[in-house]
Order: sequence, then structure tokens, then C-alpha cells
Amino acid sequence: MITDDPQSYIQGVLARDRRVLAKTITLIESSLPAHQRLARMIIDQLMPYTGKAVRLGITGVPGAGKSTFIESLGTMLVQKGHQVAVLAVDPSSKRSGGSVLADKTRMEKLAVEKSAFIRPSPSGDTLGGVARKTRETMMVCESAGFDVMIVETVGVGQSETTVASMVDFFLVLMIAGAGDELQGIKKGILELADAVVVNKADGDNIERAEFARKQYESALQFLAPCSLTWTPSVLTCSALKMIGIDKIWEIVLDHRKKYVATGELETNRKKQAVDWMWSLIKEDLKERFYHNADVKNMLPKITQEVENGTTASTVAASQLLFFLDKTRSV
Amino acid sequence: MITDDPQSYIQGVLARDRRVLAKTITLIESSLPAHQRLARMIIDQLMPYTGKAVRLGITGVPGAGKSTFIESLGTMLVQKGHQVAVLAVDPSSKRSGGSVLADKTRMEKLAVEKSAFIRPSPSGDTLGGVARKTRETMMVCESAGFDVMIVETVGVGQSETTVASMVDFFLVLMIAGAGDELQGIKKGILELADAVVVNKADGDNIERAEFARKQYESALQFLAPCSLTWTPSVLTCSALKMIGIDKIWEIVLDHRKKYVATGELETNRKKQAVDWMWSLIKEDLKERFYHNADVKNMLPKITQEVENGTTASTVAASQLLFFLDKTRSV
Repeated sequence: MITDDPQSYIQGVLARDRRVLAKTITLIESSLPAHQRLARMIIDQLMPYTGKAVRLGITGVPGAGKSTFIESLGTMLVQKGHQVAVLAVDPSSKRSGGSVLADKTRMEKLAVEKSAFIRPSPSGDTLGGVARKTRETMMVCESAGFDVMIVETVGVGQSETTVASMVDFFLVLMIAGAGDELQGIKKGILELADAVVVNKADGDNIERAEFARKQYESALQFLAPCSLTWTPSVLTCSALKMIGIDKIWEIVLDHRKKYVATGELETNRKKQAVDWMWSLIKEDLKERFYHNADVKNMLPKITQEVENGTTASTVAASQLLFFLDKTRSV
Repeated sequence: MITDDPQSYIQGVLARDRRVLAKTITLIESSLPAHQRLARMIIDQLMPYTGKAVRLGITGVPGAGKSTFIESLGTMLVQKGHQVAVLAVDPSSKRSGGSVLADKTRMEKLAVEKSAFIRPSPSGDTLGGVARKTRETMMVCESAGFDVMIVETVGVGQSETTVASMVDFFLVLMIAGAGDELQGIKKGILELADAVVVNKADGDNIERAEFARKQYESALQFLAPCSLTWTPSVLTCSALKMIGIDKIWEIVLDHRKKYVATGELETNRKKQAVDWMWSLIKEDLKERFYHNADVKNMLPKITQEVENGTTASTVAASQLLFFLDKTRSV
């Protein structure tokens, strides 16, 4: 049952009541306007309790062993006394009860930990919509006292950039390939990386992983550093054998220490918050535009004319914007 | 004198009357609404005459010798019988009579050619505004029968991405550095490149240029190719000594031949036209938002609150969008 009193949610979240936490996230993920309004009230009041966690984004090439990696890292962090929330941004997800189960199953060790909270990706039509829900869920989890946020991306569309824009540290998980490991990396991904980790560095694979590590290291030299404070690290690990996982966490903490010292952590987060506000505004304005009846009617025809080169893009834009003005003045 | 009859401009442009061409571009660059309306009418009627040119974008690191390169390439093309228009996108330009002169002076050989037309960057407050003017100028130059468009970017802000989105082929000009040539390349630039050219490969510098060429070649392997049809070429040249310039043009033509054969040239241009329409619409919607009196008043305060974490980005966005609705319903 969903009550409409924000206070009961707020108190429950702050007391880390897992049932209330889950219900609050359900509100955030709901498409009902009443739920969204309630969620907004809750989040607004939780804002003072947010911002204390380490926010870590993780992406990986297919087959890199992302779930195992997150499970190993999460389990280690729980053992160190951390409270870990694992969230996801997957715009392709059409979540059902089944896939929640699947998600928990694939991290079964971590899922049973009292200090861990695993929430699969919200579903949504747009990456923006999915990302909004995950960001708000992150705020709620921080308010509930979780001090490490692991936000996973499946690497669909622009999801890495989106996740990178909501975390402090972005980790790209790789594996050694057949000599062509550097092919097929999605454009721009390495440039987002604060660390590149070559997983599955165990058994027969150690040498190949080390070779891949060197390849990535030299690749990263071609990309200008994000900051004078930080040069991306390139490491190997074995998530399965729990080798090198502690070293990765040390690097995350080292990065955090440096960014706190220079003030960049705060600056980045401020910028992320303002950028997010703007992306919400832009999305809303675009939606209003799309929903205008005349625009809806004329858009296919005008788009076709632009494609065929019979109407200039500037003229087409003016025509469509004119419909908006016409409706507005009625 | 500027008349308000579109036909006189259209006829003049189609007859490649340089005085009318220049006047039409002045209309495009004007900020007066009457001029803009007239320009739009002219461009709309010129659309059927556009699209036949080779559209080549060029950027370069500072000191790469971009002007000399464009002058050498342009002069060679004119000698081959081409009609060459050189345009620019420089959002930092505050054009005055002086800098037009400076621009023509720096390409003095090309500037005196009858088959060449050099137009410095329009000025503008936003990259979007500058880019719109350059795109429209490109359409006008194509209608006037110029068959090679060279669009130069100064590499400020996102200007490379913008130029890449209006051309068929994007060339990045480099030079050999002191062993660190791969440092300091702006992020994402190499990924836009259809060709990377190391200039100043002459005299004592040939070996270093060849070394740099190999470095860039291996760097490009780290970046997934744009298309199955094309792998970016990496070459050296000496614009000053006119060495290797013909080879570069051969590559541009080879690229064009392949893209025409696969249909990608047409597909890309259609996509560019529709993307451009959308970017004009987005820019306009954003402008309307900014100009709303309540938004203008409240924006600084609300932005501050978002930065300080006292207001959630979602809440701030709703508040600002609410002002828009309020004004609209009045």
C-alpha cells in the first residue's frame, strides 16, 4: 500500500527500513503523476542527507564479467564495514518480476548481505527517464546511509556518458582479447575512464591480461587527461579469484582524497546537479514540442522534405516552431 | 544597398555574381529579422541547386599551418579546374573589416584566384548561431556553382563536432611534436577524423613527421571505425613545399566514391539535415525558456540552490518549467 504522507517515507528511509526504501524507489519509478509528485516531495526533504557516499560508475565490454566483478567488489566492501547500494542504468530493460529475480540471482552472495542493497535498472522509454529514476534512487539510498553507490551501465546507447555524469569515479572493465582488444571499444568510453581494469587475470590468462593492460595504458596516453589531479589507472584483477580487488578500491579512495583536497569533488558534483537540471528542462521542452498537435501532424512530412533537400533545415525549423506559437496564442 | 526582392539575389547567386553572392551572405549573417526572413526565402528557393559539392572540413592543432595548407590545397584545386569556397566556423571571432582583410591576407595566393571564394567566419554569440550562418553560406556557395567547400574550424569549444556535422569528409591537421604529439589533442577529435595529415614533412623534419604519422596511425586503431566503408587514412605532407597535397585530394575523392557507392553519402547528408533542423528547434526552445521573465528572475537563485544541494535538480526543473506554464496561460 502506498500512503500519501511524505513523512512516513522520509522517516523510514532515514531509519534504513528496507521495506520503506523499496516502496520509496517504487514511487520514484512509477509513471503515475501522483506518485511522481509525492516522490519529488520526499526527495526534496531528503536532499540534506545526501552526498556523503562514494559514487562509483562501472561499465564493461560484453563478457568482461561485470556482475562477478560488482559482486566481488561489493562483498569486499561489506566485509570492510561499508553499506553498499548497487543500482543500474539500462535503457533497454523492460523490467518484470522475473528479471529482478535474475538480477539478484546473478549476484547471489551480495544479495543476501544485510549491508547491501541491489536494485535492477528502472525501465523507461528514454535513457533520460531511466537515468532520472536511477539518480533519484541514488539520493534515497544515500539518505538511508549507504556509503558506496555502485551504478552499473550495460553500455547501450549513451548510457555510459549518462552514468559517468552522475558518479565521482568511472571504471571501465575489460578483458584480454585475441590481440585485437582495442578494437570494438565504444567511441569515447576510454575518455570517460578514471580507471581501466582488465578482469580475468588468473590461471593461463595472466600474461594476456598483462599484455592487454599495457595496450590500454598506451591507448590512454592518446587521450588528454580529464584533470591535472588524476591520470587514469590501468590495472588487472580477477573478480572470480578475488585478486586485485582491494587495490582497485584503494585507487578509488586515492582519487577521492585528491579530488576532495583540490575541491574538484564538490565542483564536479555541483556541475553535475546543474547539468542534470538543464537536461530535465530540455527534455520537458522537447516533449511539449512533440506533443503539440500541429507539430505531430506535420513532423513526418516536413522531416521528409528536409531529408529530400526540398526544404532547408532552417525553414523547416521555423515552420514547426510557428505551430507552437499559433497554439500558444489560442 | 539591400533590396527586398529575393529573385534578384537568387538570379545573381545562380549566375555566380560575386557582388550578389557577398550581399546574400551579408543577409544571412545579419541579425535584423527582416534580413533573416529574406535570407530564408532565398535559401529555400536555392535548395534544389545545392548538394553537388565536395564538403571538406578541416581542423588543426595550433601551429599546424592550417592557413598554408588550405591555401595550397585550394590553389591546387583551382588549377585542376575546381571552384573552391573557403568558409570558417569560429565562435570566438568578432569580425571586423580588419580581420576580413587579415583573413584574405593570410591566403593571399588563393584570395586572388577567380575560381576561389574566401569568407571568414561569421561572428555570433553562440556556436550554434555561427554554425547556422556558415551552413547557409555553404548552401549559397553551392548554388553559385562552387564544387568544393572547405570549412575550417579554429578548434574552439565544440566547433570541430559542429563542422564535422556539416561536411562529408573531416581532415585533422597535425605536426610532429617533441615526442609528445599525442598529448594535448582535444578529446574526441581523432574520432571525427576521416584523415589525419601530419604537415611540415619537409627538410630536417621528414623523419619526425613520419614518426608522428606512425604514432597517429596506431592511435587511430584504438578508436572504432565510423563506417565499414572507410578506415581513416594517416598521411604526411608539406603544405609549404606542395608535397603530398595531391595524394590528400585523391583520398578525399576515394572516400567520396566509396560513400556514393554504398549510399552513405546521401544517408549522412539526410541525417545531417534533420539533425540540423532539430538543433535549431532545440536552440529556439531554450531561448524562449531563457527569455521568460520569471525564469530570468529566478534562475540564478534556483541554480545556486541546486549547486548547494538544498534543492534537488528535479524539483528545480519543475519550478522553472512551472513559470513557463504560468506565463503561457496568462
